[in-house]
Parts: sequence; structure tokens; C-alpha cells
Amino acid sequence: MANIELKELTKRGEDYSQWYQDLVVKADLAENSAVRGCMVIKPYGYAIWEKVQAQLDKMFKETGHVNAYFPLFIPKSFLSKEAEHVEGFAKECAVVTHHRLMKDPNGTGVVVDPSAKLEEELIVRPTSETIIWNTYRNWIRSYRDLPLLINQWANVVRWEMRTRLFLRTTEFLWQEGHTAHATKEEAEEEATRMLNVYAEFAEKYMAMPVVKGVKSANERFAGALDTFTIEALMQDGKALQSGTSHFLGQNFAKAFDVMFADKTGKMEHVWATSWGVSTRLMGALIMSHSDDNGLVLPPQLAPIQVVIVPIYKNEDQLAQITTKITPIINELKSLGISVKYDDSDNKKPGWKFAEYELKGVPVRLAMGGRDLENGTVEVVRRDTLCKETRSIENISQYIQDLLNEIQQNIYKKAFDYRTAHTITVDTYEEFKEKIEEGGFILAHWDGTTETELKIKEETKATIRCIPFDGDKTPGKCMVTGKPSAQRVLMARAY
Amino acid sequence: MANIELKELTKRGEDYSQWYQDLVVKADLAENSAVRGCMVIKPYGYAIWEKVQAQLDKMFKETGHVNAYFPLFIPKSFLSKEAEHVEGFAKECAVVTHHRLMKDPNGTGVVVDPSAKLEEELIVRPTSETIIWNTYRNWIRSYRDLPLLINQWANVVRWEMRTRLFLRTTEFLWQEGHTAHATKEEAEEEATRMLNVYAEFAEKYMAMPVVKGVKSANERFAGALDTFTIEALMQDGKALQSGTSHFLGQNFAKAFDVMFADKTGKMEHVWATSWGVSTRLMGALIMSHSDDNGLVLPPQLAPIQVVIVPIYKNEDQLAQITTKITPIINELKSLGISVKYDDSDNKKPGWKFAEYELKGVPVRLAMGGRDLENGTVEVVRRDTLCKETRSIENISQYIQDLLNEIQQNIYKKAFDYRTAHTITVDTYEEFKEKIEEGGFILAHWDGTTETELKIKEETKATIRCIPFDGDKTPGKCMVTGKPSAQRVLMARAY
Repeated sequence: MANIELKELTKRGEDYSQWYQDLVVKADLAENSAVRGCMVIKPYGYAIWEKVQAQLDKMFKETGHVNAYFPLFIPKSFLSKEAEHVEGFAKECAVVTHHRLMKDPNGTGVVVDPSAKLEEELIVRPTSETIIWNTYRNWIRSYRDLPLLINQWANVVRWEMRTRLFLRTTEFLWQEGHTAHATKEEAEEEATRMLNVYAEFAEKYMAMPVVKGVKSANERFAGALDTFTIEALMQDGKALQSGTSHFLGQNFAKAFDVMFADKTGKMEHVWATSWGVSTRLMGALIMSHSDDNGLVLPPQLAPIQVVIVPIYKNEDQLAQITTKITPIINELKSLGISVKYDDSDNKKPGWKFAEYELKGVPVRLAMGGRDLENGTVEVVRRDTLCKETRSIENISQYIQDLLNEIQQNIYKKAFDYRTAHTITVDTYEEFKEKIEEGGFILAHWDGTTETELKIKEETKATIRCIPFDGDKTPGKCMVTGKPSAQRVLMARAY
Repeated sequence: MANIELKELTKRGEDYSQWYQDLVVKADLAENSAVRGCMVIKPYGYAIWEKVQAQLDKMFKETGHVNAYFPLFIPKSFLSKEAEHVEGFAKECAVVTHHRLMKDPNGTGVVVDPSAKLEEELIVRPTSETIIWNTYRNWIRSYRDLPLLINQWANVVRWEMRTRLFLRTTEFLWQEGHTAHATKEEAEEEATRMLNVYAEFAEKYMAMPVVKGVKSANERFAGALDTFTIEALMQDGKALQSGTSHFLGQNFAKAFDVMFADKTGKMEHVWATSWGVSTRLMGALIMSHSDDNGLVLPPQLAPIQVVIVPIYKNEDQLAQITTKITPIINELKSLGISVKYDDSDNKKPGWKFAEYELKGVPVRLAMGGRDLENGTVEVVRRDTLCKETRSIENISQYIQDLLNEIQQNIYKKAFDYRTAHTITVDTYEEFKEKIEEGGFILAHWDGTTETELKIKEETKATIRCIPFDGDKTPGKCMVTGKPSAQRVLMARAY
């Protein structure tokens, strides 16, 4: 049983950051690779990501989008075409300069072949607006070609200096939607629609409450006129930007010369949006719900929703338990519930219990000798760790309901946590004091980048967003006393 | 109706290669991008690829595999670790040498920041054996950790000099399975199992007959002990390698020092396989079935299985047709059939017919004024272009059966074509003559690379595989007269 020791996590209260790192690695979600800043997403972690992808993809298709695929590489010159975009994205990136290796003339390995230098360097895409809008130029002729509603599932690379598994990695997986519209209004609607899709996904599937809002100018996507965001609050009181949707105006259409003939035949520049979520969501999922025993997964995204562990003295008893359990497994499966029956003989039940707790399986059933006699089963729910013994009569229906209840409860817990950690502050003094405790702070701000940067420098807090919902009462900036249109959401953030 | 002209294809008989290029572009499957050798997979093409992916993924999971994700980049030194692998893969590849751009001090654009040179260059993965086996070293300790059955869906880059959409592109999408086993036998079984999965997919879903066999030493994957392949015959008489599965022996385990303790505690090197199919399958699919009118898609992989076109004189008639058609659409959908009702008013029916033929939609229904009176519908199947008018009674069931029949018929047509174009040849003279006509040739070969290369040089034909099935009678090499164990399959190939 030495493995239980090995798998023990740092407690959240001791070192939150270490707890997160331990959990990601020990629950077999991901690990660092031999390539600086790039992660390996392990099968269990990837199975969760597949559930995330499948649900989002369904929601994108339901809102009229189709998938396509654009090149991994972007010609260097493309990045400079949109003036602001280049500032944001042409800095830390992977640059391909050569296309061949050759045997090292002075050794045994391989070296770059100097004769295979590219005429123009290629950048591994940090995001695909440029290459996609360069392509759209040939796809769009008239208003009949619009709207163009395209999404891409892809890997992207941003050369990050300080990386953390899922939260900030050099290579990450994401989806990026890139849409083209005939009017400003349509593009704005689209950007809002997709923000709402993200919010719905976060709340219904990840069980993670989010605040929807618009970014300040300083936090906007490079090249956007407006960036909409969903912001979640992690258990350590830090905010995590979980998805963004950008209204790009005509910036990329102008940079790449994408025009369309409207109904009157007049040529106009096309209006654009882009929107994305990434494997960063995995970090958000982990930090929203998990505890000192390990991962807590919402049933909607759990690769294994129910694990069943037999507790037996001998082969004969195992066979009896298996006979009893088999119809339950079949019933659960017919209800669309994913079940794992773990009758492996090389681990003791206690080890298995700890392992599935660590991996966040929402419901655990155990059946031992006494249960066999009584026609019962032990049911443990991961979110509360509450145990009960129940008759196996109608157990499948009970479990289906329980999974729904767990989904709701996890959401409620996160929602209550957020409510308890969202405060309103009126003076900068109080802000500086309260920001140390973490959480969301609603405060008045004068709308200037100058004030925003001052706050950031002095407190490490940033404006997460100007919320769409909630109190819209005007007031006075807590720093400068100048007029403020409404309170903004501030926090220290990942 | 000028668009019909625009979409006309070159005829296969005139210029097969141009026909293919036209078809890929005009049917909206893919196009060349601004980046040399990299393609854009357009939404319609990507929708087919999604169907390919979904089915293969299901089959991989049914055979016990799980998905994971490994880094895009491979440290240059990794490529040299397996002696043969480096020969095959460390040549034409994209090399990342820097991680930052900066403003051009002498101009307006951006240039590579010379101070951001990487200590060790990174290679954009051409295949992932090296980075994956470097990772497996930490995942495998004992026989209990085996087998490890992992697949990855990813993009890879091989710097090809001459590219063709789908068939050979610098960047392509694929899946690569990488498995680890305790014994040679298990690994060999796995490599065979996955070849069979590929063959089943090709035949049942792509409706494309394939020959299964083993590659000659010369055509083996770099680093493999054996490469198994499925080979298909295209309509121009050229072979297309459609999927490969490799028995890697202990080569990568030795190169990356991956050992496990067996049941007795003895340390052994792990046995490996890898296997992959790529977007090249799209090329195979297109060239197996399509004709001078455009794409012919097997119903199992068609994004739209049935298109319905109303033919109407006025809005009122359209409304009547729509009323009649709606229950049919609903019935088809409830049978799991994907349907598109194209009542757009900006294209004439004739244009729509040509468009859906070009796009390979298996079944087209049309309803006009007379059909409305008679309670009939016109049914046109894409594979034969046969037209019939049928009562709308039980039409959904009829269409479901028709889709199955089309799937079978497309397969049969390809199978018959292959049979008619597979010949047996006994002399090199005859071989040289017959190879000009295209098709598969079964001939005796002495098993040496020397002879193989001579044939290749003199005839451009290669040994596609040593088939598993069929005639195993020994004979004499057509070139050297030396003993041959069995006939091998030869062809000119893509």
C-alpha cells in the first residue's frame, strides 16, 4: 500500500499552488514534457478534454457553425499587417527558420542544414486571425457569402516564460471561431452569442459560475474593438479568465483587404469576430471544485461517472458479487451513465477508494459480503464524501438522480463560495486591504488606463471585466474620485 | 447560371491529375494556402474528415485504446537516438530555432530577435515515436503497467518538395497509435489488429477494397522491424498506401531506455507498435469513387446523405411542397439520416442539382408541381445517376435501404475495378509492358532490395506489399530467376 503515501497531496491550506501541481500530476491529468513549457496531456486528462470538446462542438454546431482547418504556420509578414495585433502576438513565438537537418559533419548527431534556410520565416500560430483572414479574402465576394461561421480545433504556441500545467503552457489546445459578417450589428450579436455559449457551458457543464462582461481597453485582445469575457473565481480567491469573444470590427478585413458587394452592389469591408476557449478550462475545472482528497468532477464531464468496487474474501464471493452487480451495470449503461467495474485483484479496496477519490469519480459503489446477504450496496458521493447503504432495488434510477444532484450541488457550492467572496469596496484604502484576502471586488473606476495600471502596479489586481449584469449605479472612482459609470469587477488573476 | 461553367471539371480521361485538383477545389474540400505545401481544409472537406475521425476513434476505443496528447515539438537530439529513425525522419522537417520576433530596427515589419536563439533546436513533429517513448520511460515500471494502448489525433509536418492536396502536404492531420507491450507476440498481435481495423474501416466505411500485406525491407517505416500496410487501387491504375501499422520490436525502448520488471522481477525492454492513417485517406476516398460529374461519397461518410430540392413556380407552391416534404425530413432524421432541404431562392434547381452532384451527396430528391399532384417525388442516386419517380408512401424506408444499396454498390464497383486491373505476370518483359497500363501486378521477386530498386528505377513500380492472402505458391523472380516465396503486389504508386 505504499502507493497511497505516494499519491498524497499537499493540502490546499498549506500551499495552494503545490496542491494544484500535485493534483494535476497525481490524478494523471497532465505532466511536463521534455520540451520546455509543453505538457503531455495524459489519457485521463484527455478524456475530460474530449468531453469538453464534444459538448462545445455540439453547441457551436447548434448555433450554425462548421469546422475547418487552417495551416499551423503563419508567414512572418502576415503578423505585421494588423498594427495592434503584431504588438500583442509577434513577440514570444516559435519561429521556423529552416526546413532540413543533416548529419553533423563534426559528430554523430544531426545539425541544421544551413543551406535550407527559409526565404521568409514561418511563425507557429499563436492565434489564426491573420492566416484565416488572408484565406477569407478569396472566399467572400458578396453578401450572399455571409455570414461565414467557422470554427477550428487546433494547437497553438505562445512562448511563455513561466508556465503552469493547463493554465499557461507554451503549446496548448483550443478552439478558435472566426466569423465574417455583413454588418457591425450582426458581428456584435455573434460575439455576444458565443460569449453566452461559453457561459452556458461553464455553468451547466463545468458547474462553474461565471461573470460575463467586457474587458477594459488595456485588457482587450490585440486587434479587437471589444473583448467580452467570462470570469470565474478559483478557490484561492484568484480570478481565472475562462473564455473570450472578440468583436474585431473591420480591422482584419482592412488589413487583409476582404471586401464584399452588398445588396446594392457597393463594396464594403467585412465585419469580424473571433472567440476561443482552451485547455486552460481544465485548470479552471480543477481549481473550481477539487479538495484535499483530490479532483471533484462534475458528472457532466466525468469520463467515469460511477465506479463499482467489489469487496471480497475469495473468488467465489467475487463471482457472487459480480452476478449481483452485472444487471446494475447494464441498467446504468442503458441510462447513458458511464460505469467502471473495478474487480482488479492487485489493489486492495482501500487503495481503490483513495484512487477514485483522487480522480474525482462522482459516485462510488461498493458491495461486500454483508451487502450480498442484505441485497444492499454502499453509495459514496465524491462531492460531500457522504456514505450510505441502500437497497439495490431501483438503485440505477437513484444513481441517475444522484448524479444530477451532485452536478447541482457542485455548482451551488462554487456559486456560494463566489457570493461569499465578492465584496463591494468604496475607498482605495479598503481595496488595498481587502485585495489581500482574495476574491472579487466591485469598485468604481474612472475608465482610464492610467488608473487601471496604477491599481495593477500597487495591488497586483486587474480589472477582470465591466460586468453586463448587476448594479449599474454610477459613482466615483475609488482612486481618483472622478466619475465612474458603474462598478467594475476586480481581482488578482491567473 | 455562369457558375455552372465555373464549376466544370476537367474530365478524368483528359487529365486525371487535373481532374483531381479541380475536384478537390471545386467541391470545396480543400485548397492551397499562403504557406507553401500547407492546405486549408474547407468546411465541407472537414465535415467528411470529422466522420472519418469519429468512426476510427470509435473503433480504436472498442479495441481498448485511449487518447492522449504529446508535444508538437521534438528536441533535435531525440531524433538521433534511434539509428534508423533518424535516417528516415530527420531530413526534411520544420526547424524552430528562435522564440521571439522584434520590430525591424531598419524598417516597419518584424524580424527574428537574434538574442532569442534556442539552445537546442526544436523539430515540428514529423511523427511522435521519439517524444512518446521518452515519456513512456517514466510511465512504465512493471508488467502491470502494460500494455499501454494510446492514440493521438494530431497535426504533423514533413517538408515535402512536391505537394498535392490531401495526398502529400507539408502539414497534415492524422492519428498515431503508440502501444507498449510485455512480449513480442503481443506487440505483433497489436500491429496486426490495428491493420485489420484500418482494413475494416476502408472497406466498410470508405467502400474501398484494400490488399493487406507486409512491406519489403526497403519500404519499411524507419525504425520498424515490420511494416504492415493496406494498399488501395485508384481509378487511374495507381496504388495508394492508405494506412500502415508497424511492429517496432524493442528499438525505441532501447533507444529511450524503457524497461519493465516482468512477473519474476527481471528487467526487460518493452515491445512497441505504432500505426497511423492521415488526411491522405481523403485523397483515397475521392479517387476511389468519383467521376466526371464530381465527388461520389459513400453514404457512411457523407456529411449530407440526402438533399431535397423543391421545384416551384411561386411562393404558394413552395409552401405546399414544404408542407408535403416536412414529415419526410422528420422521418429521415429519426432514422439517423442527415438531410438538407435546399429551398434557397437564389439558385435555380438545375444549378443545385449540379452542385450536389459535384459534392457527392448520395441521394437527391426533387419535388415539383406534378409530384405535388401525384404524391410522388423524384429520386436520383449519385452513384449511378439513375432517376425514378416514386410515391412518397414509405419513402423514408426506401431511402434508408437505398443508402445501404449505394454503399454496397460503390464498394462493388471499386472491387470489380480492382479485380479487372489486377493481373499476374511471369516475365520482366511482360511486366514492363503491363505496368504502363496501370493496375496491380502480382509477380515473383527474389526478396532482395537490389532487385526491388532495379525494378523501381527501370519501371517506376514499387512493391506495394507482400500480401497476406491469396496465392502463396513459390516461383522464380521475374528479374533474376532466383527463388521467390510467393508473388508480391506491385504497382506505380502515389
